[in-house]
Amino acid sequence: MARIEALYRLRVAAAEARALARAIAVELTVEVPEAILARSPAIERDIVARIEDLREVAPGRQELHLSFSPELAAGGLPQLLNLLSGNASMLPGVELVDAELPAELIAQFPGPRHGIPGIRRRAGARARPLVATALKPRGATLEALAATAESFARGGGDLIKDDHNLVEGSFDRYAERVLRIRDAILHGSGAAGRASHPTIYLALLAGPLPEVERRLRFLEREGIDGALVAPGLLGLEGTRALLAGTDRIVMTHPSLSGPPAGGPIAPSFLHGVLHRLLGADAAVFVNHGGRFPISREECLAIAEQCRRPRDAWPATFPVPAGGMRFDRIDAMADDFGGDTIFLIGGDLLVREEGIEAGTRAFVERVSARFP
Amino acid sequence: MARIEALYRLRVAAAEARALARAIAVELTVEVPEAILARSPAIERDIVARIEDLREVAPGRQELHLSFSPELAAGGLPQLLNLLSGNASMLPGVELVDAELPAELIAQFPGPRHGIPGIRRRAGARARPLVATALKPRGATLEALAATAESFARGGGDLIKDDHNLVEGSFDRYAERVLRIRDAILHGSGAAGRASHPTIYLALLAGPLPEVERRLRFLEREGIDGALVAPGLLGLEGTRALLAGTDRIVMTHPSLSGPPAGGPIAPSFLHGVLHRLLGADAAVFVNHGGRFPISREECLAIAEQCRRPRDAWPATFPVPAGGMRFDRIDAMADDFGGDTIFLIGGDLLVREEGIEAGTRAFVERVSARFP
Repeated sequence: MARIEALYRLRVAAAEARALARAIAVELTVEVPEAILARSPAIERDIVARIEDLREVAPGRQELHLSFSPELAAGGLPQLLNLLSGNASMLPGVELVDAELPAELIAQFPGPRHGIPGIRRRAGARARPLVATALKPRGATLEALAATAESFARGGGDLIKDDHNLVEGSFDRYAERVLRIRDAILHGSGAAGRASHPTIYLALLAGPLPEVERRLRFLEREGIDGALVAPGLLGLEGTRALLAGTDRIVMTHPSLSGPPAGGPIAPSFLHGVLHRLLGADAAVFVNHGGRFPISREECLAIAEQCRRPRDAWPATFPVPAGGMRFDRIDAMADDFGGDTIFLIGGDLLVREEGIEAGTRAFVERVSARFP
Repeated sequence: MARIEALYRLRVAAAEARALARAIAVELTVEVPEAILARSPAIERDIVARIEDLREVAPGRQELHLSFSPELAAGGLPQLLNLLSGNASMLPGVELVDAELPAELIAQFPGPRHGIPGIRRRAGARARPLVATALKPRGATLEALAATAESFARGGGDLIKDDHNLVEGSFDRYAERVLRIRDAILHGSGAAGRASHPTIYLALLAGPLPEVERRLRFLEREGIDGALVAPGLLGLEGTRALLAGTDRIVMTHPSLSGPPAGGPIAPSFLHGVLHRLLGADAAVFVNHGGRFPISREECLAIAEQCRRPRDAWPATFPVPAGGMRFDRIDAMADDFGGDTIFLIGGDLLVREEGIEAGTRAFVERVSARFP
């Protein structure tokens, strides 16, 4: 099996970079003093990560390329995370940005089941971006939420997902709401003449792991299109285990993903690689120009990772979000192109013309850019 | 039920603090534009977090006190995390530092089963700190690891845990190693005249969730004292679900906990509150003066949270670690006092006098401070 290759950004002066690189290589694999490694050549050779390259890319910014023996990743996703970031996550200024994983390792994960092509088929949309919204706010009546969903479907929206705050503690209330929203969407899609390609509905899976498993089985049984999950809340491994056997469409949400820069794991790796490994057909991330401070460069890197060929997996839809408004549509089209889901939540809810006409305007503005 | 109270540190100028506080209150609960809240007084009153207090504690440093309706936490640990940090985790400079949870909410979690009193009884140590080490490195032969464990037990060490990198992909190899280490420890404890209070052994639980469940059942069946788990790797909710029914001693490890300052969740909250909620009898954290940069203040806050009375739970043992050496023992005694597990890994392995005599010296140095 090929070695695991990983790339890190280091915020450190060039003079200290070599020592930090070595510290990371030891920390991630054996965590012992150098004196022990000096007398254990086999451990040094077989276990400690190798520094393949280390170079300064800007003053105080280094790029470190490590490689690991693939056997060290035996132990599934938790151990892969431990190997790639683990203890190094507690060293500030060390950011995991990319990895090449051997095909045998990739094959242990399901990856996206539908991806961009599958969601496009479901939506009946060949090449244009998809138009999406979030169902909210928590605290609204079921009637109001159903009316919102129906209006969005009437307006010709492609995909509606539950807001990640739309949480019911009780299974029965959850089930009632999901079925009611689904019916409202089907009704609205029929009225819009889209009965053959109704608006896709992704219901939230939030709660303890045993409960979200029960809810996912419910979604499958009832033929709900798919689910929204937040791996930051359920845990990456919990999410992997939850999704392991499902055939539903999966969209990941970034709640509790941590700051969009300077964390131990770059957003492009988190959303575009890790969330994709565990099955994201579409990955929501906070886009620049919204409510969260993230660089345009990082956002483009997320989209690139989402769509990058890996194994035989279909590409994952990037879903730039987090305070997107109508006046951001052109910039999003420029940044991300057609293989994108445009998600506008709050700004659609407050349109003066109402949600149905607002959705129609949303669709028209997107279509005008992708004729 | 009482409201959920949460405390945040904000790195923001006083002039912008109020707007940021409101943004957090909205982001964590409803995530909609202010225009919607202006026309929805019931949602504003019942759902949006309340700003209870906001004050400048130093230039550019604010302290924010929010309160939440307890119903918003229905949905177990994932939803509690979403409520307390969720989307606000993506706003740099917002750090969750403390929370008061209603008794009814606390009661949903097991908390520590043994805690400080239970581990003390097992170790036969009334008031002094416990002396602990980590079994490593990965790559060493089983013989070498067993010899290390036996020497530590012969030297009178109280507790030995697997290193968090000591991962076997195969269950059979794991089982073989754990039993071999346990036997070596019992042998060493007998030789040291501690057959009635043998060195406590905590075996690593690493791997996919279904596999670590299988391994935990194995530890229970074989009467292994307890387990080391890394909630950063298994996920907080995955760890909670894993530990829900166990009666073993649980020690948490900080791998993938993120930088020890400036992250969305303060280490004192992560290790001293969240890890404790899901059952940590002892919580390992990186201490100042070791390999990881963390402030003494934050370390003291972790220990304080570990031991703070909550519900009817026993206190959790704080375990300062991460590159502790013999020359740090006095400072650790000053910082943390007697209700502490002193964990020295690598520095014990490289003692010139060998591990058994080194352990004896370790025990003596600690005992000299707590006669």
